[in-house]
Amino acid sequence: MHSTIREIRKTPEGIMKAQKAFEDFIANHDFRLPREIVYTGCGSSHFLSQPLAMATTRLGGRGAALPCSELLYSREWYSIGNPELLVAISRSGETTEAIKALKALDVPRFALTAYESTLSREADYALIVPAHEESVVMTHSFPAFYFAYLQLLLHSYGKETLDAGHVSSLTDDVLKNENHVREIVEGFDFRNVIFLGSGILYPIALEAMLKMKEMALFWSEAYHTFEVRHGFKSIADEGTLVVLLVNEPFDWHEKLTKEFQGQKARVLTVGRRDTGADYFIKIPELDELASPVLYLPIIQLLAYYKAVSRGLNPDNPRFLSKVVKW
Amino acid sequence: MHSTIREIRKTPEGIMKAQKAFEDFIANHDFRLPREIVYTGCGSSHFLSQPLAMATTRLGGRGAALPCSELLYSREWYSIGNPELLVAISRSGETTEAIKALKALDVPRFALTAYESTLSREADYALIVPAHEESVVMTHSFPAFYFAYLQLLLHSYGKETLDAGHVSSLTDDVLKNENHVREIVEGFDFRNVIFLGSGILYPIALEAMLKMKEMALFWSEAYHTFEVRHGFKSIADEGTLVVLLVNEPFDWHEKLTKEFQGQKARVLTVGRRDTGADYFIKIPELDELASPVLYLPIIQLLAYYKAVSRGLNPDNPRFLSKVVKW
Repeated sequence: MHSTIREIRKTPEGIMKAQKAFEDFIANHDFRLPREIVYTGCGSSHFLSQPLAMATTRLGGRGAALPCSELLYSREWYSIGNPELLVAISRSGETTEAIKALKALDVPRFALTAYESTLSREADYALIVPAHEESVVMTHSFPAFYFAYLQLLLHSYGKETLDAGHVSSLTDDVLKNENHVREIVEGFDFRNVIFLGSGILYPIALEAMLKMKEMALFWSEAYHTFEVRHGFKSIADEGTLVVLLVNEPFDWHEKLTKEFQGQKARVLTVGRRDTGADYFIKIPELDELASPVLYLPIIQLLAYYKAVSRGLNPDNPRFLSKVVKW
Repeated sequence: MHSTIREIRKTPEGIMKAQKAFEDFIANHDFRLPREIVYTGCGSSHFLSQPLAMATTRLGGRGAALPCSELLYSREWYSIGNPELLVAISRSGETTEAIKALKALDVPRFALTAYESTLSREADYALIVPAHEESVVMTHSFPAFYFAYLQLLLHSYGKETLDAGHVSSLTDDVLKNENHVREIVEGFDFRNVIFLGSGILYPIALEAMLKMKEMALFWSEAYHTFEVRHGFKSIADEGTLVVLLVNEPFDWHEKLTKEFQGQKARVLTVGRRDTGADYFIKIPELDELASPVLYLPIIQLLAYYKAVSRGLNPDNPRFLSKVVKW
């Protein structure tokens, strides 16, 4: 069995490890996250930095997210305000650019990682979430990192934290769609895939696009939901699967679904309610801030089964390594 | 002859029209752009809103850019600060989402468009740049809009404006690469293309990705330059063209070029100096703030000739319309 599928299935366990990491952190540090925070990471960690920045903003702070290399070499173009903390994210804690980026601003430094590592040692604070993975590809560690940090954010901003046991069991419910996802992939040999999401689900669409590329070496795209009508949709036809991630669909989502169906593409809606799609996967109700953890296993499974159906080994994609160094 | 190629070749003329629009605007309005500005648009206009936001930030203000639909339906997730002006961009001035988005914030409204239109009439201020186009696809109007607004920004912030005649003649120089671009496309039947840019050239990479999709219905990608090593590069092989847009290359750009060549992909560097690439197009020296106008004709030509080589009509891509309405 591939490490990747084993690790996706560990999502519920990852949430519990995240909760423990959060509790250990607050037990050992008299520290509150400030209001203005810049987040940085590379690849999946950059896509993780985006919902963290959004959650910060949504909770009344001001979050910005930048890829490490942009923070290092082009930050004069980005409006990052006057941050009080820089949070760098790296699963291994050894990514060259993340270690360099941690020192890019003259503010306190915070590491979010799975290991005691160079990153954690060079930071003023480290939240270590030991959701370890053998696969090159980041899967269950993404929701685990997200959940642990979200709890710290809620705690820091004086809000009620989430019930980890409940969230963990919801991810377990979501994982029960594994066969359904496999059937969709086996039943429709799509040639390209477009992921759509808005607000906090936009970076999840980006992460889905990356998973598909890493695991299945596949033509995948991601857009802000309604942006796709502005030119991008020209590539959608009978060989296309459109994956619509949506917490609360409204009439435009139904029109969009129909529009793609009119181009002979098939639509998979992942969310609270169907939009008239060809396939539907129901996501249970949960605070929007935490909802990314319920979508991630679905899009990871989709990429995993696409890789398998293409005869590829998702644990070790060509040209990639587990830790990216220069 | 296709309208699209005629319109790309009009870039130098577009810059002069932009200059006139800027001069007319300041002659008729006692108005200065404020420091905190939110920009919005859809598709190409969204990719145009990004370098405008970056230029605002770079010049000492604070610019944010959001697609119209995100501003309308998900803005609670985005940190837009306390803007003093909302700038909505639409070539036709009739895009449903742009007209709706113009009213999304309770601040003065500014329209950037090619026509007297619903958008211009509903705004408090309108900069109308008459770079009209018959093609469904936006080409020379992009650099024209960018240049006119950049001049207004420089003027508003008390900086020296650019010499329009000089910039126009530089775009003319750049257009002399048309045959070179055609030869590259005809000589290498690439299966997918990855555009890379950093800072103000990142949104230009995004726009390149969109042009390729619209005109050539083609697998195209865009990333922050060094982000591509973090997973995305798995899809690059002997069928891939990597287009590296770079004003000032340094050693990492050369290493990146070699890395892709090691995967048997071919690299086209567009910039001031070659990075050891398979193909090179030299961009003349110009203030970085204005440099997007020199890159745009190249990436538009690339998409145009790819479309032609695939036997497609870039003036009227399938499934697309000139003005996107709901």
